[in-house]
Amino acid sequence: MRFRFVGTGDSAQTPCFGCDCQACGRARVISSCQRGPCSAEFWVNASRYLLDAGRMDLVESCERERPAAIFLTHYHADHVQGLLHLRWGLGASIPVFGPKDSHGCADLYRNPGLLDFRAGLKPFKPIHLDGMTVTPVPLLHSKPTLGYCLDDGGTKLAYLTDTLGLPCETESFLRDWEPDVVVLDATYPASHMEPKNHNNLPMAVQIIDRLGCPEAYLTHISHRLEADVLRDPSQLPANIRLAQDNLELQLGMHLAAS
Amino acid sequence: MRFRFVGTGDSAQTPCFGCDCQACGRARVISSCQRGPCSAEFWVNASRYLLDAGRMDLVESCERERPAAIFLTHYHADHVQGLLHLRWGLGASIPVFGPKDSHGCADLYRNPGLLDFRAGLKPFKPIHLDGMTVTPVPLLHSKPTLGYCLDDGGTKLAYLTDTLGLPCETESFLRDWEPDVVVLDATYPASHMEPKNHNNLPMAVQIIDRLGCPEAYLTHISHRLEADVLRDPSQLPANIRLAQDNLELQLGMHLAAS
Repeated sequence: MRFRFVGTGDSAQTPCFGCDCQACGRARVISSCQRGPCSAEFWVNASRYLLDAGRMDLVESCERERPAAIFLTHYHADHVQGLLHLRWGLGASIPVFGPKDSHGCADLYRNPGLLDFRAGLKPFKPIHLDGMTVTPVPLLHSKPTLGYCLDDGGTKLAYLTDTLGLPCETESFLRDWEPDVVVLDATYPASHMEPKNHNNLPMAVQIIDRLGCPEAYLTHISHRLEADVLRDPSQLPANIRLAQDNLELQLGMHLAAS
Repeated sequence: MRFRFVGTGDSAQTPCFGCDCQACGRARVISSCQRGPCSAEFWVNASRYLLDAGRMDLVESCERERPAAIFLTHYHADHVQGLLHLRWGLGASIPVFGPKDSHGCADLYRNPGLLDFRAGLKPFKPIHLDGMTVTPVPLLHSKPTLGYCLDDGGTKLAYLTDTLGLPCETESFLRDWEPDVVVLDATYPASHMEPKNHNNLPMAVQIIDRLGCPEAYLTHISHRLEADVLRDPSQLPANIRLAQDNLELQLGMHLAAS
């Protein structure tokens, strides 16, 4: 499996408009430190699949390589706003899988254009792609939200954003499933003591500890968390890294930043 | 008044994803022929004002120069989607004026962040900025929509998108107001005989003729209209031009493409 982080920021992205913190200042002068809307993509047997569609340049990206399907974690704008443009294109429809959510976002359901919104996925019921099994798992967020457990027969990766903690049944599933890599929401720093809808860093670390996963990446990272980690990098255990935009994982082989 | 077209495309933009028409093919190799989401900006006394906010790089643009206020024509995604990101910034609030629309777009009203959504504007009741009068006028679209008549004391410009025809009271107002420049929706080619929500080219030409305006620009241009005009440029009368992205009008002086 080839897996790539496309965006690793929260809804404000990094740099955050109007902010002068260390993380935002750095991102303004080093473009590789920027964080776009949280999303990823993976390839199996030369087919490209998207995990969320909030990137602003979604159409340009799809012109370069048309996706076989899009998996949505949920319908918040920063995860779907690229679809508001992509839908008006021409050609074959693009299947869109996601949680059952009667509202969607804006008028996407009413005016889907070339997007083929499939019925809401059933948690824990796997989808079989050509060379990959994708199992949706419920998360804890302010809108119906799914994580996705990807298994290409050689490597297992769990992509878990946006969430505050994990539902018991999801944590139980993951313990049995034994992922090789976990990608988990860590939006806020430790000082954000009562986070809503997203983990802070200590919560994310505890979850990864409980899952006993050897390798983990944090995503949906706010500029505030990043500034805090820049101040004190020792907060991150050795097996947990902050993901970064464009980081590509060659799973089953070795991990390398593109 | 300094006035600049930021985007002059329809919701599909140009190039349209998956399309190989002449207009889309040209835009893929000549970036100045691309058409982004329909929007514009103007400056009065060194303050910058936005007309719509659908551009994908709205935050980057606002980082370069913070707008004094944003005027929305309506709440369709291609006119507001940049706000879904901008709202999460820091610092002083940004006033947003627009039509009365109880729905807005997605969760913008519920989670406005730094956006200060003002009460819906009353048609024909002018707003007085420092050095500019802005008069909202109703248009005919699938959502409540306003055009804006800008008067800096020297030049009068009417910005009229998205609309199919004009309401009688708006046309009557414009005849009395006598704009120097009209910017008008022309989304479809003549072959699109029964357009919905947007003018086709002959309808736009007729409206401009009736208003007796000496200078007019068409905007919200689909790739289909552009391909048709490339095939037969004689469809455009001498006083009417297709606007283009980044075209800047130095009003009260002379007109020049930036």
